[in-house]
Amino acid sequence: MATDAQQACFEAGIKFGSLYHQFSGTPVSPSSARSLEAAMAEAIENQPYCEAVDVTIHDDRVADAIDHENGYTELTGSLMDVEMRIDYEGVAVQTRMEMEDGYPLMKLVAVADDDPSRSGDAAPSPDADPNA
Amino acid sequence: MATDAQQACFEAGIKFGSLYHQFSGTPVSPSSARSLEAAMAEAIENQPYCEAVDVTIHDDRVADAIDHENGYTELTGSLMDVEMRIDYEGVAVQTRMEMEDGYPLMKLVAVADDDPSRSGDAAPSPDADPNA
Amino acid sequence: MATDAQQACFEAGIKFGSLYHQFSGTPVSPSSARSLEAAMAEAIENQPYCEAVDVTIHDDRVADAIDHENGYTELTGSLMDVEMRIDYEGVAVQTRMEMEDGYPLMKLVAVADDDPSRSGDAAPSPDADPNA
Amino acid sequence: MATDAQQACFEAGIKFGSLYHQFSGTPVSPSSARSLEAAMAEAIENQPYCEAVDVTIHDDRVADAIDHENGYTELTGSLMDVEMRIDYEGVAVQTRMEMEDGYPLMKLVAVADDDPSRSGDAAPSPDADPNA
Repeated sequence: MATDAQQACFEAGIKFGSLYHQFSGTPVSPSSARSLEAAMAEAIENQPYCEAVDVTIHDDRVADAIDHENGYTELTGSLMDVEMRIDYEGVAVQTRMEMEDGYPLMKLVAVADDDPSRSGDAAPSPDADPNA
Repeated sequence: MATDAQQACFEAGIKFGSLYHQFSGTPVSPSSARSLEAAMAEAIENQPYCEAVDVTIHDDRVADAIDHENGYTELTGSLMDVEMRIDYEGVAVQTRMEMEDGYPLMKLVAVADDDPSRSGDAAPSPDADPNA
Repeated sequence: MATDAQQACFEAGIKFGSLYHQFSGTPVSPSSARSLEAAMAEAIENQPYCEAVDVTIHDDRVADAIDHENGYTELTGSLMDVEMRIDYEGVAVQTRMEMEDGYPLMKLVAVADDDPSRSGDAAPSPDADPNA
Repeated sequence: MATDAQQACFEAGIKFGSLYHQFSGTPVSPSSARSLEAAMAEAIENQPYCEAVDVTIHDDRVADAIDHENGYTELTGSLMDVEMRIDYEGVAVQTRMEMEDGYPLMKLVAVADDDPSRSGDAAPSPDADPNA
């Protein structure tokens, strides 16, 4: 019922919500940020249709967020940037999470269909088009 | 760049991934299942564009999963059904998670655009493509 | 090898770590705080030796933490107080999480052994202290 | 009020509950297990009084748990062993999580006080003992 592009966007959203709510709250410091970045990326790349995940935890923001003597903070969206690439049935979706007005926003950056016989969401599929 | 329908599907996916990875692993028994269902639904309904969430934890499956004397198990996708309704700029998306071949599958059930001046993703409108 | 009182304290710690890391990050608003409090308490009360859990999410702090237009924030330790009572083999442990110097601190409030034939951790045994 | 040894055991429990409920549910496969082990250990080592954490995710158990075509499973206690060493005010606590009767059990392995002027939990502190 949904188009492949819609399904690709749905899959992209699942990965973002998963990454965020699995890992937010994790104790993090500049010295543990690299292993956490790697684990987050590799964990989510296990999920279906997920081609690539890149997580950057900003050490300067982590250091700024450490406001007590214990030397660590908890991971939140404001400490990291995330980029993901999803590929569902030939539809590639690029997504990004980054700070916008102080709020970590998850965004669709691009939706691209590599199948020239489909023109993406804006046009009918052969099946749906009686004139095809 | 993305269509409203694609964006709506992306938002729907975010909610599903969030719900699943925030709450899976929660200790659950038949006697605590009702409060967990309510909290899961109300928590995710806070998120943007999320109109309604319905969570059903199946007590019989919870009871079957309690395999030790402690009387509880951990929430997993196999113990529950989830339905959600997302509304993004007039595009309504229905989603569902349910068991399929032993695997809890998150699905797009329907994508519906209530704006007659837009054709939605599935087909061109005369207005949008006078040459079709 | 460990005493019952030490084991009771270990069990108390497990419950606190579980509650905190299972639920921190959950989307929360004043209107969803009650169901989340109930679910947190009932979920952790499932765990072994956990007699009672009381969670108070402070609506005023939640409201203050909502700094964007979406109308919700994510649960952190700074938004709630938690009290728990653990009972392990007759040793009762009271614990509390509350803000201290801006940091949510988990604390042992009291460790009490109800068995007069054991000295427990809080008092000397005749064997261990011949001068008592 | 609590002894140092009791406090050390409480801290040990917090770390175990944190590790388990932060990371259980993470998508994992044999190829992503190493980065997850590292991230789990380094994250929890950030917490106060936590000297060392060692996580072993068993690839054979992960492989056995992958029961669908997607090639990954979700982390649960049954897939890993965890050892931790806590040091609180000179009291060293060794803990371990391992499978026992099909249930992942968190255990106190040893509680050792390195201060010869204290005899641990079984004896009074100088303040409590008028004969000291």
